[in-house]
Amino acid sequence: MLNRFSIFKTLLLFVSLFCCSLSSAQEKPKEATWIWYPGDFEVWLSNKMQVRRTEREAVFPPLWQYYSPYALVTFQTEVDIPKPDEVKIFSEGPFQLLLDGVQIYGQPKSIAVPAGKHKISFKVYNQEVLPAIYINGKYIKSDASWKVTNEDKLWIDETGKAQQSGTPWVPVGSWNFNSPENKPSGFKLTTKPLSAKKTEKAGIGQLVDFGKETFGYIKIHGLKGKGKLALYYGESREEALDSAKCETLDHLSFDGKQSETYTHDGSKAFRYVQVQADAGIKYDSISMLYEYLPLDYRGAFKSSDEQLNKIWDVSAYTMHLTSREFFIDGIKRDRWVWSGDAYQSYLMNYYLFFDSASVERTLLALRGKDPVTAHVNIIMDYSLYWFVGVYDYYLHTGDTKFIKTFYPRMKSLMDFCLERRNKNGFLEPLEGDWVFIDWADGLPKTGEVSFEQMLLARSLEAMAVSAEIAGKSEDQKQYQKLGTDLKTKLFDVFWDKKENVMKHQRIDGKIQNIVTRYANMFGIFFNYFTEEQKQSVKNKVLLNKDVLQITTPYMRFYELEALCAMGEQDYVLKEMKNYWGGMLNEGATSFWEEYNPNKKGTEHLTMYGRPYGKSLCHAWGASPIYLLGKYYLGVKPTAPGYSEYEIKPNLGGLKWMEGKVPTPNGEVAVYCSTKEIKVKAGEGEGKLIFESASKPKTNSGTITELAKNKYQLIVKPNVEYKVSYKAL
Amino acid sequence: MLNRFSIFKTLLLFVSLFCCSLSSAQEKPKEATWIWYPGDFEVWLSNKMQVRRTEREAVFPPLWQYYSPYALVTFQTEVDIPKPDEVKIFSEGPFQLLLDGVQIYGQPKSIAVPAGKHKISFKVYNQEVLPAIYINGKYIKSDASWKVTNEDKLWIDETGKAQQSGTPWVPVGSWNFNSPENKPSGFKLTTKPLSAKKTEKAGIGQLVDFGKETFGYIKIHGLKGKGKLALYYGESREEALDSAKCETLDHLSFDGKQSETYTHDGSKAFRYVQVQADAGIKYDSISMLYEYLPLDYRGAFKSSDEQLNKIWDVSAYTMHLTSREFFIDGIKRDRWVWSGDAYQSYLMNYYLFFDSASVERTLLALRGKDPVTAHVNIIMDYSLYWFVGVYDYYLHTGDTKFIKTFYPRMKSLMDFCLERRNKNGFLEPLEGDWVFIDWADGLPKTGEVSFEQMLLARSLEAMAVSAEIAGKSEDQKQYQKLGTDLKTKLFDVFWDKKENVMKHQRIDGKIQNIVTRYANMFGIFFNYFTEEQKQSVKNKVLLNKDVLQITTPYMRFYELEALCAMGEQDYVLKEMKNYWGGMLNEGATSFWEEYNPNKKGTEHLTMYGRPYGKSLCHAWGASPIYLLGKYYLGVKPTAPGYSEYEIKPNLGGLKWMEGKVPTPNGEVAVYCSTKEIKVKAGEGEGKLIFESASKPKTNSGTITELAKNKYQLIVKPNVEYKVSYKAL
Repeated sequence: MLNRFSIFKTLLLFVSLFCCSLSSAQEKPKEATWIWYPGDFEVWLSNKMQVRRTEREAVFPPLWQYYSPYALVTFQTEVDIPKPDEVKIFSEGPFQLLLDGVQIYGQPKSIAVPAGKHKISFKVYNQEVLPAIYINGKYIKSDASWKVTNEDKLWIDETGKAQQSGTPWVPVGSWNFNSPENKPSGFKLTTKPLSAKKTEKAGIGQLVDFGKETFGYIKIHGLKGKGKLALYYGESREEALDSAKCETLDHLSFDGKQSETYTHDGSKAFRYVQVQADAGIKYDSISMLYEYLPLDYRGAFKSSDEQLNKIWDVSAYTMHLTSREFFIDGIKRDRWVWSGDAYQSYLMNYYLFFDSASVERTLLALRGKDPVTAHVNIIMDYSLYWFVGVYDYYLHTGDTKFIKTFYPRMKSLMDFCLERRNKNGFLEPLEGDWVFIDWADGLPKTGEVSFEQMLLARSLEAMAVSAEIAGKSEDQKQYQKLGTDLKTKLFDVFWDKKENVMKHQRIDGKIQNIVTRYANMFGIFFNYFTEEQKQSVKNKVLLNKDVLQITTPYMRFYELEALCAMGEQDYVLKEMKNYWGGMLNEGATSFWEEYNPNKKGTEHLTMYGRPYGKSLCHAWGASPIYLLGKYYLGVKPTAPGYSEYEIKPNLGGLKWMEGKVPTPNGEVAVYCSTKEIKVKAGEGEGKLIFESASKPKTNSGTITELAKNKYQLIVKPNVEYKVSYKAL
Repeated sequence: MLNRFSIFKTLLLFVSLFCCSLSSAQEKPKEATWIWYPGDFEVWLSNKMQVRRTEREAVFPPLWQYYSPYALVTFQTEVDIPKPDEVKIFSEGPFQLLLDGVQIYGQPKSIAVPAGKHKISFKVYNQEVLPAIYINGKYIKSDASWKVTNEDKLWIDETGKAQQSGTPWVPVGSWNFNSPENKPSGFKLTTKPLSAKKTEKAGIGQLVDFGKETFGYIKIHGLKGKGKLALYYGESREEALDSAKCETLDHLSFDGKQSETYTHDGSKAFRYVQVQADAGIKYDSISMLYEYLPLDYRGAFKSSDEQLNKIWDVSAYTMHLTSREFFIDGIKRDRWVWSGDAYQSYLMNYYLFFDSASVERTLLALRGKDPVTAHVNIIMDYSLYWFVGVYDYYLHTGDTKFIKTFYPRMKSLMDFCLERRNKNGFLEPLEGDWVFIDWADGLPKTGEVSFEQMLLARSLEAMAVSAEIAGKSEDQKQYQKLGTDLKTKLFDVFWDKKENVMKHQRIDGKIQNIVTRYANMFGIFFNYFTEEQKQSVKNKVLLNKDVLQITTPYMRFYELEALCAMGEQDYVLKEMKNYWGGMLNEGATSFWEEYNPNKKGTEHLTMYGRPYGKSLCHAWGASPIYLLGKYYLGVKPTAPGYSEYEIKPNLGGLKWMEGKVPTPNGEVAVYCSTKEIKVKAGEGEGKLIFESASKPKTNSGTITELAKNKYQLIVKPNVEYKVSYKAL
């Protein structure tokens, strides 16, 4: 069965081919943009963003190491221009400008560059923010083609001659800061005004309801007088009304000289706000500035099931709320970038926004810089998801530049992981390593856990592909071998040949008699199991209610994916309707960090021992986007960047469904009922694979029979295919 | 012969003894002070300072990598207090406060801590400057006893329970920021007003002379009108008058609304300033704010030779001008921290200011943080001086805390150096390595250079001592062996047994027929040579004018030290009077980067192909302070922190001399004429060793005869010894 991982083995063939096609695609007209040391903007912005979490006005910074941008970097380009160019210079930080090795005095606002070949270099210092430049002439423009280093080692000898040596120049980082005024240091998400839906008296104050989960800045209109005003935020009505225990709040103080419209400077997640003001304070109304990352909803899904459509819509909204400066876990809490959570956001993103920049930003924020002294987010599994996330990024976008630029950081993180293996070559938590896997009471996490070894094996395979892309063939061989050896060992040790399932744990050389869902479900969509093993795992583990149940949408994501990969779309559809439908029935306007159908009323709001501890808008709650796009519409890439892909529609019991799955430069549109399949794609070569009880017909192309009742149609770009068939 | 290095072998005996005595000395009454992650203030301040160099208004940043402070750190202390304490909190950056693991809401300005045992932790974020706190209660105060980490790995499990693991806690950094207002981020050197000595017309402007080399901010008094005003700075009259080629200048612009007294915000090095103002601008006079690090002149020297006294005074002034935020090379240029230059400043400092804080700051600024990707200042020799500088710091101050705190950074730098050895185990420049040694035309620097191997051997010995102090006995053994082996190999390869001198270089296995002074003079005061080898080196190299001459005061420092170490004080005195006296005769008011007696007039100002390229106030020009204190007054430590020391006065042809050499908590005062020696010391046990033609007498203690005409007197603290003797 093909899936997002099964093409690992054949992938290397594409690498060299693809690199060539990319480089020619890059020759589009140049536009100037702000540039910086790659990864430094992301490090800087994630530091700023993640420290904005508060808990009842206490700042609550992340628990892992912060990295810093380089305060002093050198940008360099070599040009050959047909005519003289007058080049404007904008810089974040004082700079030293060398034109052909000669220092230009002062801090010029522009420079005249004669026609011909030149080497231009800017050394920029900025301790407070991050060094960045924007250079704009007719021919000479700062863009992704520039190089940068944090140690230029340019020295001047006794005679005044400049010497340069041993410098690691890397491609610059950039995003969408395409005007001089639009500086990286000034980055802000977009905002728009939003009115309250309802306002009611609440004790000594007022309760404002914005109608659904949202995020932004409270505005007070018609504000007059002097005194104090408190804002108690709630993702639930109960939380906003509980001023003593709500998770976030603000105490404001006004001296009577404020303007009539006040906008608070701290953003929060909420649906409700309780406002309590001193008697001396009057105001007319409360509204908000909704804050968001502008993203196109390029993916879409609609079906004959209204509840499912609502699940998709709320999933998409949940995903959008948590797709911000970075893919974060939850908008009330933690407002942090967690690798395990982000990994799912990457996958959902490929089926909704296909926003590559957000994936890159998040990967870079998570990875930080060298030296590596702890796992990503200090969690063993989270380091490993990071590698697979890089691989998936390449698979979906076809972009090799990211891997080429950051391969050294991939390698140093993998070195860190490999050094932490025990004498058996398995990862076992050392001091400072947190093994997460999932929130689940009584889940054993010590010793050698099969799930971690499986993730490491997959990470090693991702490293092998990446090493090849980075042109490190020795590394490629080494990672390939390490991956193969580990996989063999994984099965030798953890696969129970009698029971035909994967065991969970070995301690001091003794296999523990525990079976959990984790390694078993990953083994399915990693394609690590034989068909026979898969069937056994499906029946003995996935569909076995005696095996420790999964209660978080986080692992639910993979559990349902594994079942879909086994063709259990009918079963999964019912599960989705129960689980996500259950949250909707509880009044959810975005999906939660955790849902237990057995809980009642305000029990749903509690977590971590706190009455409102649970996040009611959590990215990992949005997985139906991914499941519906990949396993019902059935679209997925089978070669980097959708140069090849597959469409395997599966109604899972629906009467009909239609939708779109975005690709790098287009989309795959699919309609499927029990009688008709329509597809149209913007790029690449697709294989429409479907089952039919009767011989199907198409308006274009040729249908091939693959097996009994199984057919294939090659999908070329920009052709609308209409296939009439009869669902089994 | 004992010298600053010869006690390496016996030093380890002192380590454990000394640690104990230090810890009891630290139990003084507590004072609150600002604390930070160790080394981060120094990294931050050196970034700021070193980028202040300008060349004709172009910012001229250093050519090596800048490091950054950690933006997020956690401070922690455990206390046991007899009564409740009201503790004030001051922070640079928002913080999260945990008392006994429980988060305190908000950003409190103070906190009430009940009596008894508590664990207090502050997680502080500051991206722009550096996170720092100042905590002040009756019992609980932030001080050097607190610990800090940049990755506290404190996480909260599903039940809300806080977990902590695998965290490297280190002692905090601190200096003298002892009040809430006196924040690290606000650090400024001290200033005081200074008047001009002379003002004269100069073309369209005015030339202001401050009488001697100085440093600071130009002030304009009685400023009126609108227009432009230019300041052209000169360390020489010629430079200030040459507006087109002077190295530093400022273009100011006034709109008529400025106040009457203007102080420029950029500090410069100068003696002269040429002021050119538009016709619309009037002013009464020019003065300056002299900027300096407040330091006690604890060392002193006076003698029967007035020129020598002047040399000492100008050396001390030169040393003070270059002892600033850090020990820098020169105040006009480079205004940077160079390890080779700083190493000499450390040594001079021990004979003038004995300011330990400046040594620590400079060592930390140079070392930066991990990972090590290049040599210190990208120069091979400069990495090696750094290790020896750490060792010397321990020897002079007896402080073990610095080594204990920063041993990991010592080790990672040494790892970097060791990895760069060639297959013969020698350092040979790789891509990106700059071999400096000295400015000297035609000095070969490629292949295996004996000088670099000798510095590496010494660095390995310093690492062995440091490893022992840091409690890493395996490391100690390893470094000891590496050092011994390298020393053996150094002599096997480079010592010419026929000529009895050390050769300079080997290329591709072939010894080059070149002898230079460098390894030969270091071999003397490193005590690497036998007595016979020393004599040979002295005659065949040091006193041989056919061997490539040294023209920089930088290497002159070591050349004269080697001669002094060989008892050539008479010869060296004449050399000092010629060389430094020569600069005084040229009108020097501070000592220069380079001096060639054969040059004439403005030729003295040129360097690096620029007419005023030479720095006329360069730290390495101040070596007479060191030579006179160590080899004429003859005072030096022979055990860490002057617990034992030696006084070996040597008049070198002077009629008399007197002076003081500072020790950690006192000073050694010495008077010596041809008939009388007087000494008094504040601490430690000294050995006064002197030669006398007659049997000497003392007012206290007992004189022992060591050999014919050679005597010793044990010097106890706070006793004034008067010895009558007869100089040979």
